[in-house]
Amino acid sequence: MSKLVVVGTVAFDAIETPFGKTDKILGGAATFIGLSASHFNTEVGLVSVVGGDFPQEYLEMLENRGMNTDGIEVVKDGKTFYWSGRYHNDMNTRDTLATELNVLADFNPVVPDNFKDAEVVMLGNLHPAVQLGVIEQTPAAKLIILDTMNFWMDSALDLLHQVIAKVDVITINDEEARQLSGEYSLVNAARKIQEMGPKYVVIKKGEHGALLFHEENIFFAPALPLEEVFDPTGAGDTFAGGFAGFLSASGDYSFENMKRAIIYGSNFASFCVEKFGTERMQSITKDEINTRLEQFKALTKFELN
Amino acid sequence: MSKLVVVGTVAFDAIETPFGKTDKILGGAATFIGLSASHFNTEVGLVSVVGGDFPQEYLEMLENRGMNTDGIEVVKDGKTFYWSGRYHNDMNTRDTLATELNVLADFNPVVPDNFKDAEVVMLGNLHPAVQLGVIEQTPAAKLIILDTMNFWMDSALDLLHQVIAKVDVITINDEEARQLSGEYSLVNAARKIQEMGPKYVVIKKGEHGALLFHEENIFFAPALPLEEVFDPTGAGDTFAGGFAGFLSASGDYSFENMKRAIIYGSNFASFCVEKFGTERMQSITKDEINTRLEQFKALTKFELN
Repeated sequence: MSKLVVVGTVAFDAIETPFGKTDKILGGAATFIGLSASHFNTEVGLVSVVGGDFPQEYLEMLENRGMNTDGIEVVKDGKTFYWSGRYHNDMNTRDTLATELNVLADFNPVVPDNFKDAEVVMLGNLHPAVQLGVIEQTPAAKLIILDTMNFWMDSALDLLHQVIAKVDVITINDEEARQLSGEYSLVNAARKIQEMGPKYVVIKKGEHGALLFHEENIFFAPALPLEEVFDPTGAGDTFAGGFAGFLSASGDYSFENMKRAIIYGSNFASFCVEKFGTERMQSITKDEINTRLEQFKALTKFELN
Repeated sequence: MSKLVVVGTVAFDAIETPFGKTDKILGGAATFIGLSASHFNTEVGLVSVVGGDFPQEYLEMLENRGMNTDGIEVVKDGKTFYWSGRYHNDMNTRDTLATELNVLADFNPVVPDNFKDAEVVMLGNLHPAVQLGVIEQTPAAKLIILDTMNFWMDSALDLLHQVIAKVDVITINDEEARQLSGEYSLVNAARKIQEMGPKYVVIKKGEHGALLFHEENIFFAPALPLEEVFDPTGAGDTFAGGFAGFLSASGDYSFENMKRAIIYGSNFASFCVEKFGTERMQSITKDEINTRLEQFKALTKFELN
């Protein structure tokens, strides 16, 4: 079976939205990526770090869903990374209320031996130095996918550029694409970013969908219009997980197949936002996934005859 | 041949964008709608009002492009409606610098006798009282399309609701749909607006595309990602003109055909923004239109196999 290495945070989140609030619940980029990617026929190896306060039952849940957690280091006398945020009424913007790096501050990622030959590597949003460390440990990778954010553009741009130069796909949001490239037009931004290294640029626009750029080709995937967005936390990671999981399982990294991967990613993301945290991602069924894929198809299909 | 009545402003615009500024140039909702709709095999009759200062050559240009201008009243001792605006760097927001209603203040629309039997009526963004006046003069209409904006929601909501109750299609932007319905989710907003009258709701999201809602069906049309947006003025009207023109020429007002109409509308809008005012709309060729339609098809096409 093909192998997918996922590096990212496994964390506690405390979330406030206009619809309610949670205490510390399971969160983190690698968690959401893994929950999404594990729906595909590929071996998913998580690389992360947690503290002694991290419940064993969470690790078991990830294992039970088919993820390999050998790469999740447990620092017994440390505390798990914690993030807390409050979403505004529009659900598109949020304030960070707390960020406690804890064990993440000294995270030195170790890819388990039996995942060093993985063909696909998904670098979740983390310090670029950690991402570089994982790239060095996966020399057989044929497809490296990078997720990052403006925080690293502000605080570690040189290192981030080193990572960007080594990856095949980058996924960032529209504002970050503009910041990274200095171009307002997303077409021009994507072109400049391709010149930095990645042959494929995925620009995430949240409720407005996602764009995939490759050479002169552009593909647009809509987001499914939803009646309610309950909690957007993890939607971007869930998208990335579906994208990476689909590509890893298929072994086909062409532009045509990446279009499908984007649709799968968008499909999972549309579920993620329906409940707090990982709750919805832990309950989706095969039937629900397929029904919604049909809705995605219907959403943009037209015949000009 | 089928007939399409278009009511709206024919105006002077003065525009500032980050790329430059213009003196008073030709503008107005009916102008952009007509320039777009006249590409289809349907008779387009403009209903509007201008002052004695309006150049005869502009009227001749509209006639030469196949529009009937008998319904454009010329008030010899009046001045043409004038709007001036400045776009911000993001090109999505703008400040209005001047609005001089002039002859528009007392506009009493008169639909020419040979257009009273039109099957399709496009109500451009104007005072709802004027829109009602046109509805009363077109009793044979099978498809009435309404464009409006937040200004009328703020200043003439009761009259606007009378118009909304009489139309088949409403086109508004996402913020206006939220204001009109009191719902943040566009799915819920569209449902509430359908209950007000229109069986079809088109929500324009500018660079993020457009959504068509009908009963439980949703269609999404992307906007073509462009290297440069030079001047967004008239893009919404151009979209509406392509939409109305295509439907009028085909005589098929089904959901399936409305999807095509939205693609045609989006296609024309993508040209409109490439130059100041109506300049680009006056120069597009059949080949350019068809080439870009192929790009629209490629943009969202995927096969899940």
